[in-house]
Amino acid sequence: MFLEKVKSEGLAHLSYMVGDGGLAAVIDPRRDVDVYLEIATREGVRIAHVFETHRNEDYLIGSREIQDLTGAEIHHGANLDWGYGDKVSEGESFRIGSARISVLETPGHTFESISYALADGNFGDEPIGVFTGDALFIGDVGRTDFFPNRAKEVAGLQYESIFKKILPLGDDVLLYPAHGAGSVCGSHIASREFSTLGYERRHSQPLQKTDREAFIDMKLQEHHYYPPYFSQMEEWNQQGPAVLGHLPVPAAWSPEEFEQAVEGGATAIDLRSTEAYAGACVPSTISLPLHMLNTFGGWYLPYGEPIALVVEEAAQVGTAVRYLVRMGYDRVAGYLAGGLHAWATSGREYQEVPVVHVDELSRRIKAKDRFTLLDVRSRSEYERGHLPGAVNVYVGQLAENLDEVPRDRPITTFCGSGQRAMIAASILKRNGFEQVENCLGSMAACRAVGCPIVE
Amino acid sequence: MFLEKVKSEGLAHLSYMVGDGGLAAVIDPRRDVDVYLEIATREGVRIAHVFETHRNEDYLIGSREIQDLTGAEIHHGANLDWGYGDKVSEGESFRIGSARISVLETPGHTFESISYALADGNFGDEPIGVFTGDALFIGDVGRTDFFPNRAKEVAGLQYESIFKKILPLGDDVLLYPAHGAGSVCGSHIASREFSTLGYERRHSQPLQKTDREAFIDMKLQEHHYYPPYFSQMEEWNQQGPAVLGHLPVPAAWSPEEFEQAVEGGATAIDLRSTEAYAGACVPSTISLPLHMLNTFGGWYLPYGEPIALVVEEAAQVGTAVRYLVRMGYDRVAGYLAGGLHAWATSGREYQEVPVVHVDELSRRIKAKDRFTLLDVRSRSEYERGHLPGAVNVYVGQLAENLDEVPRDRPITTFCGSGQRAMIAASILKRNGFEQVENCLGSMAACRAVGCPIVE
Amino acid sequence: MFLEKVKSEGLAHLSYMVGDGGLAAVIDPRRDVDVYLEIATREGVRIAHVFETHRNEDYLIGSREIQDLTGAEIHHGANLDWGYGDKVSEGESFRIGSARISVLETPGHTFESISYALADGNFGDEPIGVFTGDALFIGDVGRTDFFPNRAKEVAGLQYESIFKKILPLGDDVLLYPAHGAGSVCGSHIASREFSTLGYERRHSQPLQKTDREAFIDMKLQEHHYYPPYFSQMEEWNQQGPAVLGHLPVPAAWSPEEFEQAVEGGATAIDLRSTEAYAGACVPSTISLPLHMLNTFGGWYLPYGEPIALVVEEAAQVGTAVRYLVRMGYDRVAGYLAGGLHAWATSGREYQEVPVVHVDELSRRIKAKDRFTLLDVRSRSEYERGHLPGAVNVYVGQLAENLDEVPRDRPITTFCGSGQRAMIAASILKRNGFEQVENCLGSMAACRAVGCPIVE
Amino acid sequence: MFLEKVKSEGLAHLSYMVGDGGLAAVIDPRRDVDVYLEIATREGVRIAHVFETHRNEDYLIGSREIQDLTGAEIHHGANLDWGYGDKVSEGESFRIGSARISVLETPGHTFESISYALADGNFGDEPIGVFTGDALFIGDVGRTDFFPNRAKEVAGLQYESIFKKILPLGDDVLLYPAHGAGSVCGSHIASREFSTLGYERRHSQPLQKTDREAFIDMKLQEHHYYPPYFSQMEEWNQQGPAVLGHLPVPAAWSPEEFEQAVEGGATAIDLRSTEAYAGACVPSTISLPLHMLNTFGGWYLPYGEPIALVVEEAAQVGTAVRYLVRMGYDRVAGYLAGGLHAWATSGREYQEVPVVHVDELSRRIKAKDRFTLLDVRSRSEYERGHLPGAVNVYVGQLAENLDEVPRDRPITTFCGSGQRAMIAASILKRNGFEQVENCLGSMAACRAVGCPIVE
Repeated sequence: MFLEKVKSEGLAHLSYMVGDGGLAAVIDPRRDVDVYLEIATREGVRIAHVFETHRNEDYLIGSREIQDLTGAEIHHGANLDWGYGDKVSEGESFRIGSARISVLETPGHTFESISYALADGNFGDEPIGVFTGDALFIGDVGRTDFFPNRAKEVAGLQYESIFKKILPLGDDVLLYPAHGAGSVCGSHIASREFSTLGYERRHSQPLQKTDREAFIDMKLQEHHYYPPYFSQMEEWNQQGPAVLGHLPVPAAWSPEEFEQAVEGGATAIDLRSTEAYAGACVPSTISLPLHMLNTFGGWYLPYGEPIALVVEEAAQVGTAVRYLVRMGYDRVAGYLAGGLHAWATSGREYQEVPVVHVDELSRRIKAKDRFTLLDVRSRSEYERGHLPGAVNVYVGQLAENLDEVPRDRPITTFCGSGQRAMIAASILKRNGFEQVENCLGSMAACRAVGCPIVE
Repeated sequence: MFLEKVKSEGLAHLSYMVGDGGLAAVIDPRRDVDVYLEIATREGVRIAHVFETHRNEDYLIGSREIQDLTGAEIHHGANLDWGYGDKVSEGESFRIGSARISVLETPGHTFESISYALADGNFGDEPIGVFTGDALFIGDVGRTDFFPNRAKEVAGLQYESIFKKILPLGDDVLLYPAHGAGSVCGSHIASREFSTLGYERRHSQPLQKTDREAFIDMKLQEHHYYPPYFSQMEEWNQQGPAVLGHLPVPAAWSPEEFEQAVEGGATAIDLRSTEAYAGACVPSTISLPLHMLNTFGGWYLPYGEPIALVVEEAAQVGTAVRYLVRMGYDRVAGYLAGGLHAWATSGREYQEVPVVHVDELSRRIKAKDRFTLLDVRSRSEYERGHLPGAVNVYVGQLAENLDEVPRDRPITTFCGSGQRAMIAASILKRNGFEQVENCLGSMAACRAVGCPIVE
Repeated sequence: MFLEKVKSEGLAHLSYMVGDGGLAAVIDPRRDVDVYLEIATREGVRIAHVFETHRNEDYLIGSREIQDLTGAEIHHGANLDWGYGDKVSEGESFRIGSARISVLETPGHTFESISYALADGNFGDEPIGVFTGDALFIGDVGRTDFFPNRAKEVAGLQYESIFKKILPLGDDVLLYPAHGAGSVCGSHIASREFSTLGYERRHSQPLQKTDREAFIDMKLQEHHYYPPYFSQMEEWNQQGPAVLGHLPVPAAWSPEEFEQAVEGGATAIDLRSTEAYAGACVPSTISLPLHMLNTFGGWYLPYGEPIALVVEEAAQVGTAVRYLVRMGYDRVAGYLAGGLHAWATSGREYQEVPVVHVDELSRRIKAKDRFTLLDVRSRSEYERGHLPGAVNVYVGQLAENLDEVPRDRPITTFCGSGQRAMIAASILKRNGFEQVENCLGSMAACRAVGCPIVE
Repeated sequence: MFLEKVKSEGLAHLSYMVGDGGLAAVIDPRRDVDVYLEIATREGVRIAHVFETHRNEDYLIGSREIQDLTGAEIHHGANLDWGYGDKVSEGESFRIGSARISVLETPGHTFESISYALADGNFGDEPIGVFTGDALFIGDVGRTDFFPNRAKEVAGLQYESIFKKILPLGDDVLLYPAHGAGSVCGSHIASREFSTLGYERRHSQPLQKTDREAFIDMKLQEHHYYPPYFSQMEEWNQQGPAVLGHLPVPAAWSPEEFEQAVEGGATAIDLRSTEAYAGACVPSTISLPLHMLNTFGGWYLPYGEPIALVVEEAAQVGTAVRYLVRMGYDRVAGYLAGGLHAWATSGREYQEVPVVHVDELSRRIKAKDRFTLLDVRSRSEYERGHLPGAVNVYVGQLAENLDEVPRDRPITTFCGSGQRAMIAASILKRNGFEQVENCLGSMAACRAVGCPIVE
């Protein structure tokens, strides 16, 4: 029996492939499914099953893509009115050679959420691992904020699912969740991507709330952001995402073609590093460094409109396309061939975003210079410590809250390290703010050099 | 300006990509077009044009596949009623940055055949290279046997195209033909894949026939085989091949599933080496070593039926799929997972094909042993030298000429090296012949050890 | 914290790389160490430590190779007089960022064997995993037959190590052993490469012997083979293997050059499949299909002599070189370019090994045909069931026991599937046996078709 | 016969591999030779010969590296006292299967320069191609400025070599030079990397000087820069470069370790893009974008000192190592893991280099603002057109000519596009200049927008 984890970097999404005896199953596949087919060929197996843990809100599931190519059956929880696939219920099980995969209904994160226990038939019926979807992560538990009217109910369901269904499988059971650190689905997920139920039971912070009410209280006090693309993902994942067939092929554009595309309505995003954007950028592009594209793109990118890319090098285009189609952005129309260099040598206008060191920031705060320090971290990060006088508007919500930012004075954007701050700076400049700087290093540098922090 | 040759090994097909100034053109693309897109990304260019030299008969053209992904324009010769693309005529030219591509009408191989001269605008208007399709190869000229009723006419056209259109471009012009050695489109193509018009004019054997009548005579005396799939390729290439979108994904099959597929009508082919087939094979499979699949598959594989593969290792499946779709075989349904080993350990019947050394063959001939020596090489190879008593039936035509092979005595198949002989042996066994052996080494070994040869 | 398993296929060897905070450690590296350097670059870490679990007998450790390239420290058990590296003792621990690696002395397999417990400092001091080397595998425990004079003592040490040191770390601890299924270091290792101490404690067959004496008895009754290369590996691993720097580059040889090399003393091995060897092989080569090279090569290949390869395709040469240097065979001098095809077309002599189906074998046994059925499986496999009349000589010991095989009658070699039987057949032919056949399918086919078996 | 061009991007160096009949030769190999071995394996050939065209001054030759791995013979021109290899003379020839490689003495670029004519024995003795080293490029001829005391003599030799030796081989002969566009060995090399002697004879600018005296005059009027590393390359290439065995493995460094390395004497270079350097950089690093490393690194990097890298992503480290060892910089000690982001979040100081658009520059010039416009292009580029008031100091010679740059006013660096200008800016900042800006776009943008230019 083999089990292989497939990580989708930008989403911090973890899918799994289990195979034995010529057959295989994929748990929670992503939409660009070639990786699963390659594993199938390498292992000499046929993908016969796709198991979904729940209707995802942060990415498009690849089940129908796999089905289209292999004829695999698709399985998901019974508590939802799906437009495709088969419903499965508590206790049903499936054989993949000597492996057996059994359904556990584990609602909470969503009502139809299920987990799948994995047993090795050569060693008996007891589980060796469990695929928990967004119910239980390593170091964290899944969000339960998607049904605000039934918040207490779902938090309670989550408690039951974890403490009455999953953990009782046994301390010695391996934990295979759907996300790792960096996901928008959990803010305290460990960077370590391997664990067991017993280790989590004893060491995971939220699992120390073994009392039902205390657990529910904890969940109710959490604060999560809900990017606008979530509702689109939910809709498409429920009805069954469109089958791609092949990845889109963005065109190489000259500066002139790029300019025309943007004038024609394309949303232009700059995938280069924060520092490169600081040095020179095409006016009105949004700074979205490639590794942040999945986490923050869903706040800014409208569906249906073409997307235009600025990249550091052409090799990034392919990665960007994958990241975007995973979120349902299929119209990746083109990219600026030759990058900023082509743009600058064409004589076109470019912008820069000055960077400010935290020492200089401290000096200005002390000197009571007139400027706005715009801290774009999440509310909870802000509350755990910020610089004196900092105004907090979350980066994802900045575009809708521009009136909270005074236009008559310089603005220094600020975050944990300077990267989200640059996204914010790009949003501000796109909206006509002129004196915008970015504090490169931001809170990390503050803590390193010992700036005075309000906690 | 860049120019990159893309070689499709099995077909010995050469396509080309030319780019400059952010644009690119592909000449005679194959059907699995990802390679062109990768070059486009690497070079930062947009594929704006596809140039076809003629309606191909030996593979499916990838023009519409590229167009589907990039919107490129498709160009081909005016002398045919095409179902897609644009017709171009003598003298028309296209700019790809500083490159200029100009049309030369060069009928002969087919009536609509055209060549494309390439100039580097930075160095003037004179050509630096020419894409000749199947008009002129390195060391050979294209076949002119496709219009038997007008044989003399087309041979004459070919003469005019070569001597009056192509060669006059200049001795210093680089020659970029559509095929290299091993193609079914030319039997004397050089193994060297680089040349100039001047070098060919002076050193290519057929170009020494500078007299029109002598050239036509030479062409009329040539003998070529016409595999049955040619007419299907012509039809599809004229109307525009179906757009694949993505490659088929053959399933990994257990011996039982493989067996059922064959019983259900799948054509089973064995892509392993001649020696592996000799050692043990699944009954009724056709021996088609992977590197020979494109050259001989078209003789045996019916369109419309599913194809089942036996491979040495799963990694060959992907290559086989590409080879097959290039010829329009899109129903590559599955492969025997675990290969012959899985088959043999399942307890199923297997066959072997004994191999015979040429020394033993000579002994038998000398001793006048009763057996049939079946030489399956082409008629012209046979005529250039064969063993005493050998019967000649071309490997591609064996299935239709089984009555020429006596069933009442042992048969030893024979070819240039033993590989085509094994294809023939598999055809015989598939058709109920029981005493079949293969002379491994065949004519090459005969010449090496000095067997007596009838010339 | 990341943890990555690196599997060396042929050896079924598992090494691990753990990293955090810019540093990394490798546990039991193989000798071709580029894979670890690539992971280090991808993760942005510096390899600062190499941890060895014990002096290996089945492969050369890559510690000094890594040290040569990175300056990493090497650690191993204190109970041996090493020629390199540093000794570590019970309780010592090392920090790799937030990861902590602690030493547990776990003698038994060898006296200096140690295990390493891994803790995630972000979640406390308790272990999340343990690297057990050859002390504890998934589904099996390590061999304790290397010190025949102290057999009981070492079996007892193994018991203590497993039941008093490793298992008490906790049911929830992940198990990271040094070998997977297929290793010569354990015959019942599970095909599943993930487990926990708790799962093993409850489901692993040998761990059910919780009574010390019963465990020791079980170990004393085991039978293992000891290939001759083991003692060389032990010697080199103790003194520190020679630093390779780069992999050897075998030359492409013509048939003539290959012949000369073999005449000059090179040992020629044929890495192609069993079926290809059956079909045609170069006389006097040893059949060692690539995936069996590490398991059986050490029985036949002398150190110090050059090795000559016959391959299916040139791409196998690189893999073969890696497999061979992992066992200290650094003189991989050349390979037969063009393979068997080149050999056969050169007119040289080749051999075939006829294959026999189990149905025919059953018929012969029933008919009391005069022939030797040579079963080359291990003694324990033979004892668990064999065909009537079969003679058992283990494949690895055949060359030293040829006098047990009668030369005056046909011999049919037999094993679990036909692959080891072909190795044996090649050894017999190399030693002048003339009537040698191989039962392709062997015991697996017997069981599938239901031959009468003596148990 | 196959011929494969291997391009080394940064050096714009072209080497070639020719093979046939199981043998191969490499012409002018680079020092990281794995690429040639991979081709050899793919083609099933043994590298038997290395042919050098001359003692190179811009990169280290890989001949001894290949010899060390394969035993190949090394050949080079007779007119030098070499420390390794064999001397060959006019008319000697070597067979590689059916290919024949013949020596032509073609002094000029250096005294021992030779060319190699390639013939295809299957088509006669006349050449099909010629490897010209640095004697003749596509669109240009080689430099003849290395012997200033004998300038006229060597220019005359170059004339003889080209017009009396190379061009007479025939118009139809393919031209295979040792460099493409971007090399420091020729400033007018075409971007097109394929040509023939006839095409060059008729279209290459310098070859229009068919009169000996006119040609010599032209050569004497050329101006080339001579980077300081040239003399080291010459020395090492003459005695035989040290055999590397394997590539150096730079360590991943924390900001603190990076800082210590620089304090300890390492030269720190920043391989990121010009824009990223503009946005934020580690103080005192030299801007050397990866694609410019080979062209400009030799001006700034001392031999013997360790080199420390700042990269955009870890994947660049491997490429940088190759680029550096090709120039003999083997001590690539480490790189800043996590890049600028790690540096900035550590709280350390960083710098930015403001960028200036050409429109603003024009305004300043018009307004007679007090500032230095430092044009760092080559003298000849400057002379072909520059902005009013610009001071010219070549980027490579800036460090030795800092006294030509006034320290009491702002400096704007300027070049063809802004990239060399950023190298210059980094050199100025490293030397204590404080008000330094970079004109991103530079002359290309000036021409695009129509700035007034002094010609």
